[in-house]
Amino acid sequence: MDAALQVLDLLGIAVFAASGALVASRKQLDAVGFVLIGMVTGFGGGTVRDLLLGRTPVFWLRQPELPLIAAAAALLVFFFAHRVESRFKALLWADAVGLALFAVLGAEIALIAGAEAWAAVLLGTVTATAGGILRDVICNELPLILRKEIYITAAAAAALGYVALRLAPLPRDVALLAGIALGFGIRGAAIWRGWSLPAFKPRPARDYPDAR
Amino acid sequence: MDAALQVLDLLGIAVFAASGALVASRKQLDAVGFVLIGMVTGFGGGTVRDLLLGRTPVFWLRQPELPLIAAAAALLVFFFAHRVESRFKALLWADAVGLALFAVLGAEIALIAGAEAWAAVLLGTVTATAGGILRDVICNELPLILRKEIYITAAAAAALGYVALRLAPLPRDVALLAGIALGFGIRGAAIWRGWSLPAFKPRPARDYPDAR
Amino acid sequence: MDAALQVLDLLGIAVFAASGALVASRKQLDAVGFVLIGMVTGFGGGTVRDLLLGRTPVFWLRQPELPLIAAAAALLVFFFAHRVESRFKALLWADAVGLALFAVLGAEIALIAGAEAWAAVLLGTVTATAGGILRDVICNELPLILRKEIYITAAAAAALGYVALRLAPLPRDVALLAGIALGFGIRGAAIWRGWSLPAFKPRPARDYPDAR
Repeated sequence: MDAALQVLDLLGIAVFAASGALVASRKQLDAVGFVLIGMVTGFGGGTVRDLLLGRTPVFWLRQPELPLIAAAAALLVFFFAHRVESRFKALLWADAVGLALFAVLGAEIALIAGAEAWAAVLLGTVTATAGGILRDVICNELPLILRKEIYITAAAAAALGYVALRLAPLPRDVALLAGIALGFGIRGAAIWRGWSLPAFKPRPARDYPDAR
Repeated sequence: MDAALQVLDLLGIAVFAASGALVASRKQLDAVGFVLIGMVTGFGGGTVRDLLLGRTPVFWLRQPELPLIAAAAALLVFFFAHRVESRFKALLWADAVGLALFAVLGAEIALIAGAEAWAAVLLGTVTATAGGILRDVICNELPLILRKEIYITAAAAAALGYVALRLAPLPRDVALLAGIALGFGIRGAAIWRGWSLPAFKPRPARDYPDAR
Repeated sequence: MDAALQVLDLLGIAVFAASGALVASRKQLDAVGFVLIGMVTGFGGGTVRDLLLGRTPVFWLRQPELPLIAAAAALLVFFFAHRVESRFKALLWADAVGLALFAVLGAEIALIAGAEAWAAVLLGTVTATAGGILRDVICNELPLILRKEIYITAAAAAALGYVALRLAPLPRDVALLAGIALGFGIRGAAIWRGWSLPAFKPRPARDYPDAR
């Protein structure tokens, strides 16, 4: 991985680790809990991508600076999040940055590993969403993925946009930035303006028992 | 994989993807959400099997028709499920078909990959149940696996029956059909007639704090 | 793996399988459900470790005695847990034994597989906690990892202590026992005395919406 990818990767890990720590703050965990949840969130998407592709040992076992970055981001949240006006808003925005970064990076790493274009789009989407799903499931929170605003769509659009631009005669870094801007723009607008796509309209509620 | 296995595999992916989309319908997700949850459900069991065996890249990254089938099944549910009388019953029956198919297929693929008979029974059971567990956990639903009716048992019986018949001097396709019929018969009867096995009988409730 | 590691591994699998069965007892599953949840809990941590390292087929597919041990422990709970005074206390203590054993064993197996010291500490912690997380998430229980008492910290301390002692000129088995004693001592004291570390102190509740 060259310098540009490495920087984006570190940034994605840091913001996703911070998002994990923000959920840990809601659960009132101790500092070690912040670090573990931060690592699970920061490494989860890339870990699933590496496992699906068979790239083992997975990436964060080969670079000691990655756990340090994730731990530092989680501890910053542990010590300073009480000063944040709304930790939930901070969570949404940190997650949005990570979503856009990892969708594009996941797609690029899949392409480097030899995946076809369609598979790279899927793997980018998985890389972007798996860390947040793991965070929410382990912490027993309602997954962001289930919120009404556009979420998976933003990840899929970023990965698809990036892979499409890679097929064009453009410098790679232009495609990287465009894909990230597309994903963050869609997800950011969804948070800010409440954007959503047409959702499934059920019949009246008796149609489906209240399983929970 | 020969034609018979391929057909059963496509069918299993389609019905499990539809079951995932039916849970997505309860969560009122948008079309992209239906597709992602459909893929997770349709590919989840086989993905866990492949990872445990070390067969990477996992199967659905090597066959572009599989994501197409899963997406098509999920979108059919998105557009037409509002016409279904009871989406919850449809979910139960789609899940039952997938459970029986994947228990037998998962066991066969494990045998092909060189697993011993006992390991193939376990892997068949895991293949049949992991996709539905992922679907329910990601969607924050009470897992079908925890319902009172026979569920895991049907998957284990299908895998065990299939592997046992494979040791007999029978054509493989007879064993395939018999295993699937066994699994679907048990699970179907459990849904239809409320069959269950003797469950653990706890003492009065104060014995276990209400952790949730 | 030599005899000492093998014995500790079997013991860890048995107690974690029992802890899984104790959660299955709360869900009033049938005997097959006890066995599956027992296996998921007993094998979960080591499976995640093996997958992250790329050691496939994973360990329990190569040793038929392991599923037998896990199934036997789960069935013992199925038949005799109604005699236990408090199944929840039994769960906490079985989980504590498994946590200490698997933190040290996971770290040692990572070292054997060639991981660096820092990676072995992380993998030990993951081995110790992943089985319990899977158990609680699949069974829809509040994860033990989120309880106020020290939990992850005990696993991390056991793994860290073990790896640190391995760098000293000590017999390995001394380091094994010391690491296990450290982890079990910390977690045991946390259960018994309610020990906890300073947790994150949120502002008043309006700071974070009640997402569930």
